[in-house]
Amino acid sequence: MKIALDAMGGDNAPSINVEGAVLAFKQKPSSKIKVLLIGPEKLLKEELAKYEKKYKIKIPAQNLEIVNAGEVIDMHDHPAQAVRNKKDSSIVIGAKLVGEKNADAFVSMGNSGAVMTAALLHMKRIDGVHRPAISTEFPTQDGRCLILDVGANADCKPIHLLQFGIMGSIYAQKVMGIQNPRVGLVSIGEEETKGNELTLATYPVLKKSSLNFIGNIEGRDIPKSNVDVAVCDGFVGNVILKFGEGLGRMLFTLIKKALKKHPMVWAALPFIWLALKGLRKKIDPEEVGGAPLLGVNGVCIIGHGSSGSKAVKNAIFTTARAVSKNVTSEIKEEIANFNTANPDLAG
Amino acid sequence: MKIALDAMGGDNAPSINVEGAVLAFKQKPSSKIKVLLIGPEKLLKEELAKYEKKYKIKIPAQNLEIVNAGEVIDMHDHPAQAVRNKKDSSIVIGAKLVGEKNADAFVSMGNSGAVMTAALLHMKRIDGVHRPAISTEFPTQDGRCLILDVGANADCKPIHLLQFGIMGSIYAQKVMGIQNPRVGLVSIGEEETKGNELTLATYPVLKKSSLNFIGNIEGRDIPKSNVDVAVCDGFVGNVILKFGEGLGRMLFTLIKKALKKHPMVWAALPFIWLALKGLRKKIDPEEVGGAPLLGVNGVCIIGHGSSGSKAVKNAIFTTARAVSKNVTSEIKEEIANFNTANPDLAG
Repeated sequence: MKIALDAMGGDNAPSINVEGAVLAFKQKPSSKIKVLLIGPEKLLKEELAKYEKKYKIKIPAQNLEIVNAGEVIDMHDHPAQAVRNKKDSSIVIGAKLVGEKNADAFVSMGNSGAVMTAALLHMKRIDGVHRPAISTEFPTQDGRCLILDVGANADCKPIHLLQFGIMGSIYAQKVMGIQNPRVGLVSIGEEETKGNELTLATYPVLKKSSLNFIGNIEGRDIPKSNVDVAVCDGFVGNVILKFGEGLGRMLFTLIKKALKKHPMVWAALPFIWLALKGLRKKIDPEEVGGAPLLGVNGVCIIGHGSSGSKAVKNAIFTTARAVSKNVTSEIKEEIANFNTANPDLAG
Repeated sequence: MKIALDAMGGDNAPSINVEGAVLAFKQKPSSKIKVLLIGPEKLLKEELAKYEKKYKIKIPAQNLEIVNAGEVIDMHDHPAQAVRNKKDSSIVIGAKLVGEKNADAFVSMGNSGAVMTAALLHMKRIDGVHRPAISTEFPTQDGRCLILDVGANADCKPIHLLQFGIMGSIYAQKVMGIQNPRVGLVSIGEEETKGNELTLATYPVLKKSSLNFIGNIEGRDIPKSNVDVAVCDGFVGNVILKFGEGLGRMLFTLIKKALKKHPMVWAALPFIWLALKGLRKKIDPEEVGGAPLLGVNGVCIIGHGSSGSKAVKNAIFTTARAVSKNVTSEIKEEIANFNTANPDLAG
């Protein structure tokens, strides 16, 4: 299995990506994963030597290959323009490798708009999929909830949300290991009659589908672990996601402040910090190692720009699972089945 | 100043409401507030006697009056039907008291849909206001952010969001005491070009207005205290609000669990719980004492069904501030001014 990794993606590229690839090999040296490390060859060779030395390993050619890319799309580049103009960038080359069947998956911690644009252009949409969606595993009380879309499609139609449900359901089952995932429609009341124009029109479509649709869910149902796949338009999903990140950070800050004020707590502070740090890591979306772009031909995982090498390593393993579980062909099949059975909705 | 209080609203009615009214008088016995306690006269007389005895005070007739209401709209009643059929309910009578100028404000911890329906029917919209909005003071890192709409209008147009901005700005200034409040449009990117159809169309309207418009804000800007008035449609606002409540609860639960696991922390646990309890209270939306319905003729504050007597007391004081600061007439004036200056948008 070949995983194309954008070595130049993320705030701390290329080192985090190179180290991530090395860590992945170190953890599973006998896996069938071959990482294609994409970026300026000379630079990557140096970085690789550095981390092979650090971890005292030598990665065989069957597990790692450097693919030269002379250009870099950075975080501030305009996605569409950059993809058009920087044809020799690691992002464009990575997406092309998958599009031309020279790799099974593409992973990048880089400019997410550019990764999406390149994936749509070079990997292309799966036949019958209207809108690929970015999904995120959000930490919840008892596990994780896949939220989609979280930003690829600000305005949606019912058929889009239905397809998000189908794709998310497959991902939750195959990659997250959730049997018969509960699919919920993000709305403002449990009743079928509550919602906005989009959700009111989407409800009956989801209800009619073969998904394990549990009806409308409210904002609070996500952290409460009442739903496995939360379906919404990319505007709502993006606002939720960023609001959640900000709120989590705010609460940790305020809790630390509140605890510091209590003299009786001082002696225990170092241990409290340790416990909080552990928890924060556990519920940090970064630890999962990326958000899958579902609906394109091939696995494509987009990570946080602030990812560290561990997040990159985790992203590689998540990607490998998605590839080995045939997520893409499962989506292809389910979408085709649905479209055949519902020619009126297929569009 | 007469404040009509729905004595039968909330999960623990009427006691929390009666006790709340008594606590408000106890805290500010020389205020000019007269609470009109609405509900079954006999029951309320008994409750009042109980709490007057408990707090060893006797509230003079100029500060409290019981207004008889034979019916109760409960949490499960269908809002529109209940308001139509239960004309002798405390919610309908409370809204009517304001509508007929026999009270300055109406406060209820009851069925929020019914309160809104009754307010729209009997207090009526302010001239020129398209859609009244429910707003909420959301706790942030350094203070509070007024989010509106949080549920009254699932689908909105740019003129609605603009009016939310005007009304929210006045409320933030007059009641929350924020000078020149920063108004932000909830979206999915800072740039003017990021958003969905609604926000893309709303941005230029807000930019042209005389509001202190700071542009698009993202979900994370609310907890980060980067904005004082966050404007969005009622669908997005409601999802954010409930997601935030759920996430806060989840984090407190997980933090407690994580801390309990560390033996070195055990001795300090009682003090940690105390600190966390204090913080939780500080950031509990309930403590503010209710969400104002802005855009109706008169002050109308809707509280959580789970409110306690302290939340009721706080709601009474918040309401009194809104009345004494002439929030309603300020909104009337600003909306009229805007509509005169922008006849094309006034609709």
